[in-house]
Amino acid sequence: MIFITRRERFNAAHRLFRADFSDEKNLEVFGKCSNPNWHGHNYELFITVKGKVNPETGFLINLKQLSKLIREKVTDQLDHKNINLEVPFMKGKFASTEVLAMAIWEQIEADIKALGADLHCVKLHESENNFVEYYGQ
Amino acid sequence: MIFITRRERFNAAHRLFRADFSDEKNLEVFGKCSNPNWHGHNYELFITVKGKVNPETGFLINLKQLSKLIREKVTDQLDHKNINLEVPFMKGKFASTEVLAMAIWEQIEADIKALGADLHCVKLHESENNFVEYYGQ
Amino acid sequence: MIFITRRERFNAAHRLFRADFSDEKNLEVFGKCSNPNWHGHNYELFITVKGKVNPETGFLINLKQLSKLIREKVTDQLDHKNINLEVPFMKGKFASTEVLAMAIWEQIEADIKALGADLHCVKLHESENNFVEYYGQ
Amino acid sequence: MIFITRRERFNAAHRLFRADFSDEKNLEVFGKCSNPNWHGHNYELFITVKGKVNPETGFLINLKQLSKLIREKVTDQLDHKNINLEVPFMKGKFASTEVLAMAIWEQIEADIKALGADLHCVKLHESENNFVEYYGQ
Amino acid sequence: MIFITRRERFNAAHRLFRADFSDEKNLEVFGKCSNPNWHGHNYELFITVKGKVNPETGFLINLKQLSKLIREKVTDQLDHKNINLEVPFMKGKFASTEVLAMAIWEQIEADIKALGADLHCVKLHESENNFVEYYGQ
Amino acid sequence: MIFITRRERFNAAHRLFRADFSDEKNLEVFGKCSNPNWHGHNYELFITVKGKVNPETGFLINLKQLSKLIREKVTDQLDHKNINLEVPFMKGKFASTEVLAMAIWEQIEADIKALGADLHCVKLHESENNFVEYYGQ
Repeated sequence: MIFITRRERFNAAHRLFRADFSDEKNLEVFGKCSNPNWHGHNYELFITVKGKVNPETGFLINLKQLSKLIREKVTDQLDHKNINLEVPFMKGKFASTEVLAMAIWEQIEADIKALGADLHCVKLHESENNFVEYYGQ
Repeated sequence: MIFITRRERFNAAHRLFRADFSDEKNLEVFGKCSNPNWHGHNYELFITVKGKVNPETGFLINLKQLSKLIREKVTDQLDHKNINLEVPFMKGKFASTEVLAMAIWEQIEADIKALGADLHCVKLHESENNFVEYYGQ
Repeated sequence: MIFITRRERFNAAHRLFRADFSDEKNLEVFGKCSNPNWHGHNYELFITVKGKVNPETGFLINLKQLSKLIREKVTDQLDHKNINLEVPFMKGKFASTEVLAMAIWEQIEADIKALGADLHCVKLHESENNFVEYYGQ
Repeated sequence: MIFITRRERFNAAHRLFRADFSDEKNLEVFGKCSNPNWHGHNYELFITVKGKVNPETGFLINLKQLSKLIREKVTDQLDHKNINLEVPFMKGKFASTEVLAMAIWEQIEADIKALGADLHCVKLHESENNFVEYYGQ
Repeated sequence: MIFITRRERFNAAHRLFRADFSDEKNLEVFGKCSNPNWHGHNYELFITVKGKVNPETGFLINLKQLSKLIREKVTDQLDHKNINLEVPFMKGKFASTEVLAMAIWEQIEADIKALGADLHCVKLHESENNFVEYYGQ
Repeated sequence: MIFITRRERFNAAHRLFRADFSDEKNLEVFGKCSNPNWHGHNYELFITVKGKVNPETGFLINLKQLSKLIREKVTDQLDHKNINLEVPFMKGKFASTEVLAMAIWEQIEADIKALGADLHCVKLHESENNFVEYYGQ
C-alpha cells in the first residue's frame, strides 16, 4: 500500500455567516470572518490517494490524470471565485474550511476510484497557521 | 548602514476592474481577476527600513514598535477586509498589488522616519508565484 | 470526524543534560546539545484536534479560542524563556523535544476537551530537519 | 510511543521507462518523464521512526546516529547520481518515486531496529507538488 | 518605478564538465557535479521586471503574458530535459547555474521590452542552499 | 557580474542587554529579549558574493570552498553556542542580529577576496518574521 499526495492551489473569497442569524449574532460567533464585504485566502489543497503499485506502470496512479481531475472537479470551480455565491458544490453549505474539505471529498471520491486508487485524505490549508484534514468519515 | 525587514500578513478580498470600463472590457483586460463577486489572497508584506545602528540601544529600530506601526497603519486596515470597498487609504485607487504596495509606502513613510529610520522597500506577495517591490520613486 | 491544526511558534533556550551524569558523560551522550552555556531554537508547534463539526456554528472549534488556549497554557510560558530553568510545566523534566511534546500534551488535553474537541496530536519542530509527534499514548 | 522524523536531501537524475516497452509506448505511458536523456530532481526524504523514550537518555533515538545511518545507507548512494544506472539498491527496479520510497524502506528498516526504534514511515518529495508515503506494507 | 517578480519552475538533468578536460581533471575541479551519468535539480526561476505602472491598466505588465513568455522561451525548453544535451539556447555552453542564468537573460530580454517593461533580474535557485542572480551586466 | 548566495544555518542562545544598564533599564529597553536566563533561535545565514565568471571553471567561486569557509569562520563558532559568552568574534559586542551580521562581514570579507570574489551581502534571519542585511558600509 502506497500513499501519493498531489498539491493544488486556488485563490478565493468567502465569509462565515448563517442566514438564520442576525448580523449581530454572526459577528459575535464568527468575528471578522463574517465581514459582509468578504475577505479571501490563497488556499492550498493536498489530495492523498492510496492503493497498490500497478505492476504494469510501476506507479499507483498517473499524476497527470490526478492533477487534471482535481482541477476539473475542484480547483477550476473555486479559483478566483466567491465560495459562498458561485461554487455549485458548495451551494447552501456553510463556507468554512472544514465544510469545504468535506465537500471536496464528495466531489472527487468516485472519480479517484475510477482511476484505480482510493481517496485517503483531503487536507486544506487556509493560511500558514490553520489547516484541516478529512478522511471520509 | 543596516537594512532590517519585518514580515506581516493579512487576508483580504479584491477584484481588478475600472469603473470607466464596460464589464466586457474589464473581463478582456483583467480576466478572472475581474470577477464581480470578488476573490481573495493571503498577502505577505515585507517592510524594509534602513539606517545607522543606534549606539545607545545596539539596534536600528525597535522591532516591536515597527511591527505595531505596520499593524496600525496598514494590516489592521486590510485584514479580513475588501480592498476595493473598505480600506480608507485605497479609496478611489485601483486594487492591484502594484498600486497597493505604493499606497502602503505613503501610509508609513513618515512614521518610520519618526522612529529614526528610513523606509527602504515595500515588498508585497500576492501568491507564492507573484510579488512586487516598491522603493519610493 | 474532522481534524484541525493550529500552528504557534516560540523561541527558547535549552540544553540536554542529566544532573546525575558527569560533565564528561553528558558531553559523550548529548554532544554539543549539552553545552552548559545553552543554545536555542525557533520552535514550531502544531496542535491537531479532532471531533464532529458543530451543526450550530459550522465548525469544530473556534480557532481564536484554540489559539488563545495554546498561547496561555503553552507558548507564553516558553517564548523567550530557558526551558530547563524557567518553564513550570517542564520543572524536573529532561529538556528534549520528545519530552517537551509530551509535556505540552498534558498541559492542554483537558482544556481542549472543555472546548468540545479531542486533542489528537502534538507536533513540535526543533529545526527544519527534526520534529517529533506525540498522540497521547 | 513517540514519533521522530529526520529530513535529508539528495539531488539525482532519473527517467521513467520499461525496457520491455518500445520508445513509443514508454512515451505514451510516462510522457516527458520518459525522456531518454534524463531529467532530475531535488528530492526531500523524511524518515519517521517510533518507539518509547529511553529513560537513560531522555530520548528515543540519537538523531546524529539516525542521520548518519540515512546518509550511509540511502542518500550517499543517491546524491548526484543517476537512479536508473548507478544506485545498487535500485538495480533492476523501476525508478519511480513510489518504488524508490519502498526500496529505501528495505534499505534501513533493520538498521533502525538495531538503533532501538521502529521504522514508521518513508516520505519522499519529488517536487513541491508531489510526494509519496510508505508504511512498510 | 515598480518591480514585479514571477516565479516559474523546471526539473532538469545536467553535469558540470569541460570537453577539453580529462575525466580526472573534471572530477578534480567539479567533484560529484561532474558525474558522467548526470544528476538533476528542481530549479526555481524568479524573473523580475521593472517599469512604470500603466495608467490604462493600473499595472506594469500583464502577469499572464509574462508567465506565458517565460514558459515559451525558457522553462518549456528546460523542463524534464538534459541541460547539456537538449536545450538549444545552452548549446556549447557550460551547464552551471551561473551560465544558465545569463543565458536565460539573453533569451527573454528583448521580449520583455516588447511587453512594455525592462528585465531587471534573473534569479535561479538550484537548491534551497544555493542560488545566483544576474542583472544583465 | 554575477551574484551567488549560499545559505548556512546555526542554532544559538543569546540575550539583548547592556552591562552599563540596570536590570530594570535592560528590561524596559529590550523587553523579553533581555531575559537573564537567555533564549535562542534557529538562525539562517545567506552569504552573497559577486564577481566575474571564471573562464577556466565556468563559475565564479567554488561553492564547496565557500561553504567550508563560512562554516570554519562563522557557523562552527556560533552553532549550539551562547552568542554573548562563547563566540570569540562577538566578544564585547552587543548580541543583536544587526551587530552579528556586521561582525560576520568582518569575519569573512578578506577570505572571500582570497577565493577570487567580493563579499556583497550578509543576510541574517532571526525568525521567519525578522531579518537584517548588511552590505559592508
